[in-house]
Amino acid sequence: MAVYTTVDDIALATFLSAYDLGDILSFAGIAEGVENSNYLLRTTKAHYILTLYEKRVDVDDLPFFMELMTHLASKGMNCPLPVASRDGRILQQLEGRPCAIFSFLDGTSSRYPNREKCQALGQSLAEFHLNANSITQSRQNALGPASWKPLLDSVGKRVDEIAPQMQSMVKDQLNSILDAWPQNLPRGIIHADLFPNNVLFIGDTLTGVIDFYFACEDILAYDLGICLNSWCFDADGSFNLTKSRSLINGYQAVRPLNEREIAAVPVLAAGSAMRFFLTRLYDWLHTPKDALVSPKDPMEYWGILRFHQSVSGFGAYGFD
Amino acid sequence: MAVYTTVDDIALATFLSAYDLGDILSFAGIAEGVENSNYLLRTTKAHYILTLYEKRVDVDDLPFFMELMTHLASKGMNCPLPVASRDGRILQQLEGRPCAIFSFLDGTSSRYPNREKCQALGQSLAEFHLNANSITQSRQNALGPASWKPLLDSVGKRVDEIAPQMQSMVKDQLNSILDAWPQNLPRGIIHADLFPNNVLFIGDTLTGVIDFYFACEDILAYDLGICLNSWCFDADGSFNLTKSRSLINGYQAVRPLNEREIAAVPVLAAGSAMRFFLTRLYDWLHTPKDALVSPKDPMEYWGILRFHQSVSGFGAYGFD
Repeated sequence: MAVYTTVDDIALATFLSAYDLGDILSFAGIAEGVENSNYLLRTTKAHYILTLYEKRVDVDDLPFFMELMTHLASKGMNCPLPVASRDGRILQQLEGRPCAIFSFLDGTSSRYPNREKCQALGQSLAEFHLNANSITQSRQNALGPASWKPLLDSVGKRVDEIAPQMQSMVKDQLNSILDAWPQNLPRGIIHADLFPNNVLFIGDTLTGVIDFYFACEDILAYDLGICLNSWCFDADGSFNLTKSRSLINGYQAVRPLNEREIAAVPVLAAGSAMRFFLTRLYDWLHTPKDALVSPKDPMEYWGILRFHQSVSGFGAYGFD
Repeated sequence: MAVYTTVDDIALATFLSAYDLGDILSFAGIAEGVENSNYLLRTTKAHYILTLYEKRVDVDDLPFFMELMTHLASKGMNCPLPVASRDGRILQQLEGRPCAIFSFLDGTSSRYPNREKCQALGQSLAEFHLNANSITQSRQNALGPASWKPLLDSVGKRVDEIAPQMQSMVKDQLNSILDAWPQNLPRGIIHADLFPNNVLFIGDTLTGVIDFYFACEDILAYDLGICLNSWCFDADGSFNLTKSRSLINGYQAVRPLNEREIAAVPVLAAGSAMRFFLTRLYDWLHTPKDALVSPKDPMEYWGILRFHQSVSGFGAYGFD
């Protein structure tokens, strides 16, 4: 949930006079994303999203995100297209914050996507990896494996607040993941946060991939691990093999994985579970008890991590 | 800012199957209102607002609000029209909360409305008073004059946290307002919260009055006092006579005030300033320092209150 910055109607009208977007019909802050302020803007021409970048986003990363979205949209992917003002600029300033306008995508996100949606997501993820390959800029993964130990250390003994003896168990799991972390797998730009709430559908047709603000350079199959974790576990925490098979088949129909990538899926998925466990843990321990937004439960990702550490190999994920 | 209750896509689809609203195109939580969760729903037919009523709203008041909005819309006022499901019900349940769907109104709110907007607001306020007169249900004003002393007492010595010696000054002002409070003025249903953020415009044309959840039975001219306070003071806190005259002229063009109402405007406006000062004060003292939403500054309304207590009479408001 967002909208931290309020946009005054007069400031908005002045700002929009630099664009060719028609006249304003409505303007409402929307509760999407946690990093930025997002507004749904409807004009006589179309629907748009206005995003104001708040402090958690590094301004120096914005040109990379803009190039990525512009490039993916130009390749025909359903992602928000950054809209330039009349003088050709995409990144602007409004109410003292960097901002940009994007095309609006129809569709709604699905909390527990069915297998058809998982298959469509797999295809789009592979298309993302292939299409993003040709952009000129890059961005390091600030939440990659090198960050996990420092993140755990920063939390210290407080890990045990969520369950007894967690600190030593997390350390053990983390060491085991880092020891087995694969080298020399195909790398490229990954989305890194392709959870169901960032993908839109009408019926089972994928109509939008949104929220590119964690995109970065990393192992491509690690992105598949992120999606397996966020798309293929049911509400009760159990792994859904049918959904996993659909997601993997969808991916491989566009970009077949090589044998070493396939063999690495369990550890990559475990690493992804560790990354989200640690950031959720951090947020959990740093959110005031009476905050409006409840932090997500880190233990959900601990359960997912334990699943990946328990499997005998990649066969458990439904590879044909 | 709102959206406290999350609506699952499957629950939403099931819920909407009871309506004739076409297929869902998009669905987004919007950051409007602080009492309820509001979603902007776009279907193949139209735009709608889905409101889930959170704990601060008394469920027993909902039929009154629904009748009021249905009635005003039927009289041709630009206010959200409650939409019934196929079986004729307006109030429903979703995700464990009472809810209703409304027509969506175009337009944007204006932070510092110009005099044309003030005039249009005055007209709409008077139309509201005339049209709402014929509804069958009613609702007491829980934040009327009888509530102000208990509210101040509940805050106690903490009033002094906002400025030195405030407690005794507020008590004095409150007593002076209550002593002068007018009796036997025309009463009826008032909006009671018609701030600029609850009124939509396209250009200077008023296209929507929203957020009826403070509506109640009270002195009609008290509602005018609420609007004078929220529409006719400039950003620097100074009273804008031109805007006040426009608002009053707009109102009287539709519903002329009688002499006793006009004479009571200073104390009614002072009482309205006291009511918003007290509720803001309460929120100010009860909001955690690190909350996402900063409470509104009560001192803004203290300045407004002092303006009304300083004027020599109703002439100061621009009555012709």
